[in-house]
Amino acid sequence: MSNNLFADLPPDLPAELFTAFLEAPHVRIERIVSHGHSTPAGFWYEQKQSEWVIVLQGAARLAFEDRVMEMRSGDFVTIPALVRHRVEWTTPDEPTIWLAVHY
Amino acid sequence: MSNNLFADLPPDLPAELFTAFLEAPHVRIERIVSHGHSTPAGFWYEQKQSEWVIVLQGAARLAFEDRVMEMRSGDFVTIPALVRHRVEWTTPDEPTIWLAVHY
Repeated sequence: MSNNLFADLPPDLPAELFTAFLEAPHVRIERIVSHGHSTPAGFWYEQKQSEWVIVLQGAARLAFEDRVMEMRSGDFVTIPALVRHRVEWTTPDEPTIWLAVHY
Repeated sequence: MSNNLFADLPPDLPAELFTAFLEAPHVRIERIVSHGHSTPAGFWYEQKQSEWVIVLQGAARLAFEDRVMEMRSGDFVTIPALVRHRVEWTTPDEPTIWLAVHY
């Protein structure tokens, strides 16, 4: 695999694609590619680790229990451990590429 | 400050600009903006922490003692702790934006 965030995007994406770029004792960096995908209805992520996540291509709507964030390229947010969140929408027009740092 | 990687770029950049986006016990995420800057001649970074770094705009040439990497948008590399490296060149045509995860 090339070491480029924007490379190796499959032409068809039946499900979100998760690719680990770094796995270290206290940190994991991964790319997430969505293409019109959203979190299944009624499901909330509730992770034991905190996550810093940035959108680098495309567009998404990220929901928390008390607010909704519209995200465009360059937008980032920190999601503390155990804070419930879900992806409500990603644009169907192009792949949305996220970079997530779990720590 | 807005929470966008591509925002808040100063029109003039007399020196490289470092902006911390996250400081946690085992990880620090920062943006580095270069505009034609390079590491001073003869100086090598030799960091106690490891660093995962990606170029997200612009272009750069990153030198290690045994190789040189040309980096374009999306290219990333892991620099283990204590591995000497320096930035030999960044494009003068536009700001080069790096995202670095120190861990």
